[in-house]
Amino acid sequence: MWGGRFSSRPAEIMQAINVSIGVDQRLWRQDLAGSRAHCRMLAKQGIIAQADADAILGGLEAIQSEIEAGTFPFRDQFEDIHMNVEARLNELIGEPSGRLHTARSRNDQVAVDFRLWVRDACDRSVAQLKALQAALLTRAEQHAGDLMPGFTHLQTAQPVTLGHHLMAYVEMFGRDAGRFADARARMNESPLGAAALAGSPFPIDRQATAAELGFDRPMANSLDAVSDRDFALESLAAASITAGHLSRLAEEIVVWMTPMFGFASLPDDLTTGSSIMPQKRNPDAAELVRAKTGRIMGSLVALSTVMKGLPLAYSKDMQEDKPPVFEAFDALDLALVAMTAMVSALQPNTERMAQAAGAGFSTATDLADWLVRELNLPFRKAHHVTGAAVKQAETLGVDLSQLPLEEMQKLEPGITEAVYKVLTAEASCQSRQSYGGTAPEQVRARIADWRDRL
Amino acid sequence: MWGGRFSSRPAEIMQAINVSIGVDQRLWRQDLAGSRAHCRMLAKQGIIAQADADAILGGLEAIQSEIEAGTFPFRDQFEDIHMNVEARLNELIGEPSGRLHTARSRNDQVAVDFRLWVRDACDRSVAQLKALQAALLTRAEQHAGDLMPGFTHLQTAQPVTLGHHLMAYVEMFGRDAGRFADARARMNESPLGAAALAGSPFPIDRQATAAELGFDRPMANSLDAVSDRDFALESLAAASITAGHLSRLAEEIVVWMTPMFGFASLPDDLTTGSSIMPQKRNPDAAELVRAKTGRIMGSLVALSTVMKGLPLAYSKDMQEDKPPVFEAFDALDLALVAMTAMVSALQPNTERMAQAAGAGFSTATDLADWLVRELNLPFRKAHHVTGAAVKQAETLGVDLSQLPLEEMQKLEPGITEAVYKVLTAEASCQSRQSYGGTAPEQVRARIADWRDRL
Amino acid sequence: MWGGRFSSRPAEIMQAINVSIGVDQRLWRQDLAGSRAHCRMLAKQGIIAQADADAILGGLEAIQSEIEAGTFPFRDQFEDIHMNVEARLNELIGEPSGRLHTARSRNDQVAVDFRLWVRDACDRSVAQLKALQAALLTRAEQHAGDLMPGFTHLQTAQPVTLGHHLMAYVEMFGRDAGRFADARARMNESPLGAAALAGSPFPIDRQATAAELGFDRPMANSLDAVSDRDFALESLAAASITAGHLSRLAEEIVVWMTPMFGFASLPDDLTTGSSIMPQKRNPDAAELVRAKTGRIMGSLVALSTVMKGLPLAYSKDMQEDKPPVFEAFDALDLALVAMTAMVSALQPNTERMAQAAGAGFSTATDLADWLVRELNLPFRKAHHVTGAAVKQAETLGVDLSQLPLEEMQKLEPGITEAVYKVLTAEASCQSRQSYGGTAPEQVRARIADWRDRL
Amino acid sequence: MWGGRFSSRPAEIMQAINVSIGVDQRLWRQDLAGSRAHCRMLAKQGIIAQADADAILGGLEAIQSEIEAGTFPFRDQFEDIHMNVEARLNELIGEPSGRLHTARSRNDQVAVDFRLWVRDACDRSVAQLKALQAALLTRAEQHAGDLMPGFTHLQTAQPVTLGHHLMAYVEMFGRDAGRFADARARMNESPLGAAALAGSPFPIDRQATAAELGFDRPMANSLDAVSDRDFALESLAAASITAGHLSRLAEEIVVWMTPMFGFASLPDDLTTGSSIMPQKRNPDAAELVRAKTGRIMGSLVALSTVMKGLPLAYSKDMQEDKPPVFEAFDALDLALVAMTAMVSALQPNTERMAQAAGAGFSTATDLADWLVRELNLPFRKAHHVTGAAVKQAETLGVDLSQLPLEEMQKLEPGITEAVYKVLTAEASCQSRQSYGGTAPEQVRARIADWRDRL
Repeated sequence: MWGGRFSSRPAEIMQAINVSIGVDQRLWRQDLAGSRAHCRMLAKQGIIAQADADAILGGLEAIQSEIEAGTFPFRDQFEDIHMNVEARLNELIGEPSGRLHTARSRNDQVAVDFRLWVRDACDRSVAQLKALQAALLTRAEQHAGDLMPGFTHLQTAQPVTLGHHLMAYVEMFGRDAGRFADARARMNESPLGAAALAGSPFPIDRQATAAELGFDRPMANSLDAVSDRDFALESLAAASITAGHLSRLAEEIVVWMTPMFGFASLPDDLTTGSSIMPQKRNPDAAELVRAKTGRIMGSLVALSTVMKGLPLAYSKDMQEDKPPVFEAFDALDLALVAMTAMVSALQPNTERMAQAAGAGFSTATDLADWLVRELNLPFRKAHHVTGAAVKQAETLGVDLSQLPLEEMQKLEPGITEAVYKVLTAEASCQSRQSYGGTAPEQVRARIADWRDRL
Repeated sequence: MWGGRFSSRPAEIMQAINVSIGVDQRLWRQDLAGSRAHCRMLAKQGIIAQADADAILGGLEAIQSEIEAGTFPFRDQFEDIHMNVEARLNELIGEPSGRLHTARSRNDQVAVDFRLWVRDACDRSVAQLKALQAALLTRAEQHAGDLMPGFTHLQTAQPVTLGHHLMAYVEMFGRDAGRFADARARMNESPLGAAALAGSPFPIDRQATAAELGFDRPMANSLDAVSDRDFALESLAAASITAGHLSRLAEEIVVWMTPMFGFASLPDDLTTGSSIMPQKRNPDAAELVRAKTGRIMGSLVALSTVMKGLPLAYSKDMQEDKPPVFEAFDALDLALVAMTAMVSALQPNTERMAQAAGAGFSTATDLADWLVRELNLPFRKAHHVTGAAVKQAETLGVDLSQLPLEEMQKLEPGITEAVYKVLTAEASCQSRQSYGGTAPEQVRARIADWRDRL
Repeated sequence: MWGGRFSSRPAEIMQAINVSIGVDQRLWRQDLAGSRAHCRMLAKQGIIAQADADAILGGLEAIQSEIEAGTFPFRDQFEDIHMNVEARLNELIGEPSGRLHTARSRNDQVAVDFRLWVRDACDRSVAQLKALQAALLTRAEQHAGDLMPGFTHLQTAQPVTLGHHLMAYVEMFGRDAGRFADARARMNESPLGAAALAGSPFPIDRQATAAELGFDRPMANSLDAVSDRDFALESLAAASITAGHLSRLAEEIVVWMTPMFGFASLPDDLTTGSSIMPQKRNPDAAELVRAKTGRIMGSLVALSTVMKGLPLAYSKDMQEDKPPVFEAFDALDLALVAMTAMVSALQPNTERMAQAAGAGFSTATDLADWLVRELNLPFRKAHHVTGAAVKQAETLGVDLSQLPLEEMQKLEPGITEAVYKVLTAEASCQSRQSYGGTAPEQVRARIADWRDRL
Repeated sequence: MWGGRFSSRPAEIMQAINVSIGVDQRLWRQDLAGSRAHCRMLAKQGIIAQADADAILGGLEAIQSEIEAGTFPFRDQFEDIHMNVEARLNELIGEPSGRLHTARSRNDQVAVDFRLWVRDACDRSVAQLKALQAALLTRAEQHAGDLMPGFTHLQTAQPVTLGHHLMAYVEMFGRDAGRFADARARMNESPLGAAALAGSPFPIDRQATAAELGFDRPMANSLDAVSDRDFALESLAAASITAGHLSRLAEEIVVWMTPMFGFASLPDDLTTGSSIMPQKRNPDAAELVRAKTGRIMGSLVALSTVMKGLPLAYSKDMQEDKPPVFEAFDALDLALVAMTAMVSALQPNTERMAQAAGAGFSTATDLADWLVRELNLPFRKAHHVTGAAVKQAETLGVDLSQLPLEEMQKLEPGITEAVYKVLTAEASCQSRQSYGGTAPEQVRARIADWRDRL
């Protein structure tokens, strides 16, 4: 790197802060792919000789084998993955190696490598999200008709089905996959050929390298190509929103597994014990999934902060783009896989859930709705009558469905025996037939829709 | 709100923390639109009488007039926009007002209102981004051939044109607009009819209300509809990335305007003076645009934090969704408009830019490229020779184009007079004809592409 | 502001982005205090005439009265609080008003104002934290001996007392108060006299103004005085950590109030109802306290982002320091007061808590400890035996204290009848007499310590 | 870990998400220290036999040797550092190893380990900050009288000295050190003995272990001891504010080194070259320091997010406390050392700085102040006259000190020849003798103050 002009070697501290091979060696596969595409194009355009190109491609092949075999010498002295590969190429094939960097700079090279990596990460996230959705669909189908309390404010609100509840997450994760897909489509342009920042005077063919690397087209501005990292930020934002959804489901698993709820358990191989309390079955995996949100949001903040206020084009600050992205996707990978395992293995206690679904005056709204529908009360009036009925039931220590008709009639003389038909959790659930509602038929219809889409 | 059951009024502190009308009154237009759509559907489905519907629609019309006239009594005692409207409706039309809330809950009502608001905000951001792009295109065309130094690390790297530099931002803001458009498409589903969380037992027509409100379809899961705010997070993420791009351009304006650069100035009406230093022309608007990034990123963190780990369905935490979104979009609006004004009014000092473009050995790469192209040196060798030439020129206190041929030949005997043709900034720029490069023809071609797209 | 030099008025957009009076008018009291101190010092040092000083002080008095009476004309055209006050002063007293700004700049003026405001906010937070601690101490004393399950992973771990649990928060809030106190001490230096950035050529007395404003000393570097906002960041960090603690207690209140736990309730005036579900008693206040964490963390991120990478000295970016600080402390104020109200009013269901404390094999550790203590088993061995006992009890459907002695002896022959004395929740709690442990005597001793400290 | 009760081995995914030895092995030294203190106390209190204690201490010694020699077998199967040490201890000394965990849990063990690590990190940061301050003091002394432009808005405002400018950072870093010291003092309490969460029934001596580990006292509440991480958050906040200060100085170095400023350079061993532009001397180290702010702020957000809303006591989420803290302090270490190297090696171009200090009407304020002082003009009037003078000088293309007296007198007849004495940069600087001002004597006095304090 330090050519004829530098009179002294960089000091140790400079090396320590500057070296990135420990982090960016993860880009080796992308770096080799980019170099191969660039090399073939250079030869095809007559910029380098075919013989040189062949030597280079052979050398790159050898390097790939070395890395796969674990014998490649990653060396701090060569700073980053690009220089490590180039130095090794020089050791392997000598002079032709020096021609590979024609019409290229590390600025466009790292932009290509990193973009390819992030593109793969998005694809992987989409696949993992679909696997998680599939697991949720399976469980939702099994429990499409099983009652549980629907909570708002963690207070019993109205009965829903467990299948309906799980399908809410299928929707969320579907939108998450959409975000990754959109990010992927938007980033799928090739920076290669932007060179340092201004483009190249060599007759390069950017369409060709873009095509070989699976990009839709070359990026249209060379300064932009080497200096923007919005594709990484957008992917981190998608990861962060996904992590937020995961944290909610994880929270629910933790809450369902506390003995006070007793709504569900996980098999031993997805829980842990305690070093001092042998009876414990801890939902560690769910807690760790919940915690990963922190790291992923932190990564988004980290990179956003790095990029704030940087003048064009490349600044070295941008070397700090990779740690937060690698860490965030490592965390997301693990969280998605762990959540899929938990969803598949979750053992709901449907009996206890059903019992809770009917408690706590959860059908009060059904009473109010009945008053509106059958007695034509304005909703607000019906709401008031229902509130009084709940209060009376509470005083008598009974549930709404056990409140004697005469008590009801004291509050609203028009109430008849027919009202009791809507006051069970089953009836409540069954009645919510509006599109997207919790009635089992609705839930099953939505499951069918998703099966078609996945 | 506190119906028959509550024996006491909420305490003052409860009122203070709970009341949101000061914030959510901004949703009044959306709230009225949602209520109108719901009311018409209720009547059409026979759930309420047409006469009641007419009374309600009339009342809503009157409320709209009051709000527009500034005479509507927003009252803390009614907590939020929904209850304020409902209470007023009751005062205006009496009993029929109580029927509007049939088959609806504040949970789906606020979800509709807020989604409509965010959808509008996204549309507005796209329009403002396009205006900013248009301003940039105009200026880029004017300066497609004007030289300036291309920087990396804020060190002179290679000459580029000012037009090329400005076009880099056209690309960035284009992707930003794409993000808002994608967010808008993904969020464009109607929560209305999800009711409290489980759907409704009334024969409502969710497709109808969705269509009237411009949604593509109803949301498919009622729990999801009332409990997710990922549409707001995605929009905040798009805003945050946009703000990051704005902060970079703002930084450049600040840097260009410092007398040490002297690259550009802004007219007096876009700068401010100082209370103590009368000579100052401060780029306050650029600095404020740069600073807005903080607020927008902070808003994203705020809402992400709020949503982390919330169990389904609605929790009151979610009332804290609106302040960060309102603040972020207010900041973004202002920043986009201010930036458009600055871009249009910027007065570049093209002479000084051009002079800087040629200084600092900015054509060293061109020398290296010439050695590769004409003498067939491997790039790394050419790089080494060029480094030595720069060192020698520095020692002699001359620029590269002034380094005598004999000095060049000491370093590489094959160098000829012809080399001097590539050592000017103009020639350097002109030579970078690769797609997306800084050659003026390329810049103009990219401007033409964008004119077609906008 | 725009003196003789500016040839045109700032455009509307400039005004819109630049104006801050809507936000910084909250600093009026601090601004007047700073001006009074500055004015008196100027007169004492002979920099302005005493008669002018008297006129100015009279004018400032009049302005204070106007603001308190709500008649002061806050005007956007004067941009900020400083210029609004100065303009009004000019209207009230004429020419002498122009002498107040001698040896001062808006740069040090706003630094003084804001620092005074943040100092007050820290003091207020300390007072509110102490009130919250006092409320917790009162409740902890009432429940120093009342059993509840101690959870880890939200799984029953070991019995603790409710008093002990509440005292954990007394410790946390005590450290929070310490953080605000440290921040206050560190920030308590006066920027006044730093002028624009370089100090003043007038013979000002910075010690005098510092003393009058309650600062410990003047700041020692004028550039630092006008360009740093670390005092605001430190205060926001203290607020954010406090908010985190509040979010944990809020989460517990939400969890304790869900009917599945039934550990506690809040009186009606600290809960809300539902527009559609009349039976609900929602812990809205606790949820809102939990959510405020988001806004406060977001504010810290916002200001940190604003300050990142700003060159010295003042940049206009720093005008964005006030909104996040005002918002964060408004949120914190409300959250602390609301939490104090909830703590005081919380109605624990001690019976249900005690019952849960004894369930779930919560005394398993006590069995293990007994095996170590009485039979001299290594802890790991004891842990293994206990695990087997729990498994056997689970199989038999009994609690540990009901597991027959013969079953115990199958696992470890040395076990005797004496073991049953340690297997109740009361005994478990009582036994944990280590300093800071949950034994009621320990809890009461810690309460006594805190009563001495508050 | 999985004792007699678990019927199956944890699945691979569980292992993958749960294992932390790759991260927490950094705590080995603290873990051994904590175990030694606990072991000695257990023996002294008669809880374990002295012979067992001796065996354990010998085993811990052997483990320390193995780790230092790099021969210790860190194994994923034992999950974390605590279990790895315990497992190895068992291999080395057999049965007595099982007695070490008496009266202890991993919950208090990890709390001790991590607290000790963070305490060390704070101490290290203080030491590094002092080294950086010392480097700044040395340079400030060298340049106490060297002129440079003081900027606001990156516009020339008033002349200052380079020494004064550097001393601003001495102040900032001094407060940063104070924050770490305060955090250290607040966190210096021992969690050991809190056991799982409720304290211990064994007659342990928490004061003894606290003293041996250098803690001021044991923590007063066992639940708090195992479940709070505010000490880590406070340390991260201190790191984040420090990083913000570093980012500002780093920004200035980058700006000073751009050829457009040419204010300073760094020696070759603190800059890097370019792979394609051999003439470049890039301030990579400064840019990387600037970027580290992102990672450190991101870490604070990460851990804040993790802790939000966790119920007491320990939850597994808290295992995610270490990565952000380790990463943040690694980044801060590097940034502080690199900045100290840059400050020491910085080569200011004092001639160019001085020239810029006098340009741009930088003494306009001095003219205004002269008008106030000598002609008794009100400041606002003086400001207006000065603005007109600057405008006239700009029109004539001269500096203020070159504006003919007659031109001045047209604006204000009272102006005399004497005014020219205040219109040089030297005079301006020299005149600002207020405490903390930029006059060289003031700067030297402040340097002397700091030399006494460091």
